[in-house]
Amino acid sequence: MPVNLSPPKKSDLLAIDGVRLGVACAGIKKADHPDLVLIELDHNTVTSAVYTQNAFCAAPVIVAKQHQIDAKPQYLLINSGNANAGTGDAGLEAAQSCCEAIAEIANVHSNTVLPFSTGVIGEPLPVAKIQQALPTAYNRLSTDNWFDAAHAIMTTDTVAKAVSKQLEINGVMITVTGMAKGSGMIRPDMATMLAYIATDATVEQAVLDKMLTQAVAQSFNRITVDGDTSTNDACLLMATGNAANPMITEFESDEAQTLYRVITTITQQLAHAIIRDGEGATKFVAIHVKQGQDEAECRHVAYTIAHSPLVKTALFASDPNWGRILAAVGRTGIDNFELSKVAIYLDDICIVVSGQPAESYTEEKGQQVMNKEDINITVELGRGQAEETVWTCDFSYDYVKINAEYRT
Amino acid sequence: MPVNLSPPKKSDLLAIDGVRLGVACAGIKKADHPDLVLIELDHNTVTSAVYTQNAFCAAPVIVAKQHQIDAKPQYLLINSGNANAGTGDAGLEAAQSCCEAIAEIANVHSNTVLPFSTGVIGEPLPVAKIQQALPTAYNRLSTDNWFDAAHAIMTTDTVAKAVSKQLEINGVMITVTGMAKGSGMIRPDMATMLAYIATDATVEQAVLDKMLTQAVAQSFNRITVDGDTSTNDACLLMATGNAANPMITEFESDEAQTLYRVITTITQQLAHAIIRDGEGATKFVAIHVKQGQDEAECRHVAYTIAHSPLVKTALFASDPNWGRILAAVGRTGIDNFELSKVAIYLDDICIVVSGQPAESYTEEKGQQVMNKEDINITVELGRGQAEETVWTCDFSYDYVKINAEYRT
Repeated sequence: MPVNLSPPKKSDLLAIDGVRLGVACAGIKKADHPDLVLIELDHNTVTSAVYTQNAFCAAPVIVAKQHQIDAKPQYLLINSGNANAGTGDAGLEAAQSCCEAIAEIANVHSNTVLPFSTGVIGEPLPVAKIQQALPTAYNRLSTDNWFDAAHAIMTTDTVAKAVSKQLEINGVMITVTGMAKGSGMIRPDMATMLAYIATDATVEQAVLDKMLTQAVAQSFNRITVDGDTSTNDACLLMATGNAANPMITEFESDEAQTLYRVITTITQQLAHAIIRDGEGATKFVAIHVKQGQDEAECRHVAYTIAHSPLVKTALFASDPNWGRILAAVGRTGIDNFELSKVAIYLDDICIVVSGQPAESYTEEKGQQVMNKEDINITVELGRGQAEETVWTCDFSYDYVKINAEYRT
Repeated sequence: MPVNLSPPKKSDLLAIDGVRLGVACAGIKKADHPDLVLIELDHNTVTSAVYTQNAFCAAPVIVAKQHQIDAKPQYLLINSGNANAGTGDAGLEAAQSCCEAIAEIANVHSNTVLPFSTGVIGEPLPVAKIQQALPTAYNRLSTDNWFDAAHAIMTTDTVAKAVSKQLEINGVMITVTGMAKGSGMIRPDMATMLAYIATDATVEQAVLDKMLTQAVAQSFNRITVDGDTSTNDACLLMATGNAANPMITEFESDEAQTLYRVITTITQQLAHAIIRDGEGATKFVAIHVKQGQDEAECRHVAYTIAHSPLVKTALFASDPNWGRILAAVGRTGIDNFELSKVAIYLDDICIVVSGQPAESYTEEKGQQVMNKEDINITVELGRGQAEETVWTCDFSYDYVKINAEYRT
């Protein structure tokens, strides 16, 4: 059961002029289950992408990165059920074969196709099944298929994650629609599991790249379910230019900032949806670390709390066992850490002040916060002005169940 | 159920001449449950200690460190059920009061008493209960109480952890006996939860210090259950000198090395016992990282695998989902990491060689290893000669259950 997260409605997802999606059932894990998405982009589309930093990155990530250097992307091919990771040279050939199959159908060069896979690691990609389903996906290409596509890319996700927003730039109505998948092996590093955000705005490549990098830094790169960075993470931002607004060429311009804010809102909503639907999650937790010397130490403290199995199981139990938060902060190993300057809050309830238990704190007050599904943990370090927020979930029986049973 | 771990027999635990232990029921968490241990040391005893590096260290740790500087330790007072951590100035006063109570009974200065607490964080230490039980513990002081003491210091431990060994130095029979407690919040940093090792050997302070530091580096400082460093960790090594061997003054001498090897064997047995009895553990896993540039990077890789919830839940499921090991190695972020040099083994089954799936690997072979209770994971980095081993356990429903219910 996701935490305070409603599934998207089909009618809420707006088409992006220049982006067509087709969904098919390749039978990769189950028969008759949509697991293949083909996305076709208009020729003028500008595409930005960030990929996993995991050294053991999956074959499709290697191929997609190279293809993006070689040519302007025209097709994205996404399968769920198999990650094509840890598959060695055979995996690279498999990813390439899928790209070639589309190239043949669509009469384009195979390096205009970017492949993406998500699912089990270490099993051969069933290329024949994918090739067989591709014509169906191709024939179904339509701007109205975001809803079905968001469902087809799911693995252990329990609800689809997709959102649309509109804004006006220079009197031109602009639409942005995004979808993402992810639930476990989530501690993105430069990108999340898989996310695709498209707009009909007209944006220069360099500006689009900056929008994606900065939006990801405030969303997908600030969430963690279990600290495990995926081998397959990728996040794409595509701008078709079909809305015909004057080309956005400066990141600092009002037009760019307006669009950037909407894109960031969408990446944050999708990132939060991944946490709300985190494997076994029963709580959505924002960890705010303030008054750090720099942002890196704020992130280090926030992730140490977010990854503590003891903090996470206390959250699951709705137990205001704040000693575990304190112990996690204490083991971060920050240089010249002054305990006497630390304050810790659960929502707005002060637990620790000047490194000592707050006199105003009562177990009842702590319990009231912990009983909620959405919880804020705030740590003030008393060392400077930097701050960072990381979002995470709790650790439940179901996390263990889902991950102990995932392959069986 | 601990993993391949038998509880110690009372008859296996040998008395140490000069070390007397007394156990009592203070009723800290439960009535009529032994939870208080007093240890009396002969006046000539040399004591070494290492403590937690957690910045939020508990009140007894602060007091014990100071008392050890001030005076030669004569008494150790240990309670379970309450950690006296996160208790601020009141906690320091509580620890000090307990020391003073013993000082009064035994007619010594309170700074010759070292206090230790383990249990729930953030609740006031019930000083009156402890003071009331102290005379009983004092009256029961005896060299034969290691077995009862090892039981009284337990919290979520399911079996007591204690071991004795004998050796001969210069024709003199030397005895070493140690006990430890710990099961969760285990990722010791300079020391484990609580461990007390005593010998009747005659050893100079500087040599004893070195023996403890080096033995701990190969045992308690190489284990992890959940990555959470406790606020209360402490490990003591005491040498009474009553065996009357010629004083050991050189760490490099044959005598010192013989004793050191036995002490290391004991610390390793106790450390492994903590993992075998790790909260919810069903597997005992040794992670060997070899061919690193230095030991620090070997430890970093080993701990990244050991802390991965996905690796730990796959171990729980006996699932040879080696892709998760590979993904954990891949996210370590080591500089100039060359995937093409990496090899990974489950016991002696090669999974990955030259960064590629091993052709000889089959799911059946992997399954055979994963079905075992004792499992070795070996990673060869192909970067140098350094190596390190870290011991850990899996992540089960029971870990979540134990930690979600611990305070209720």
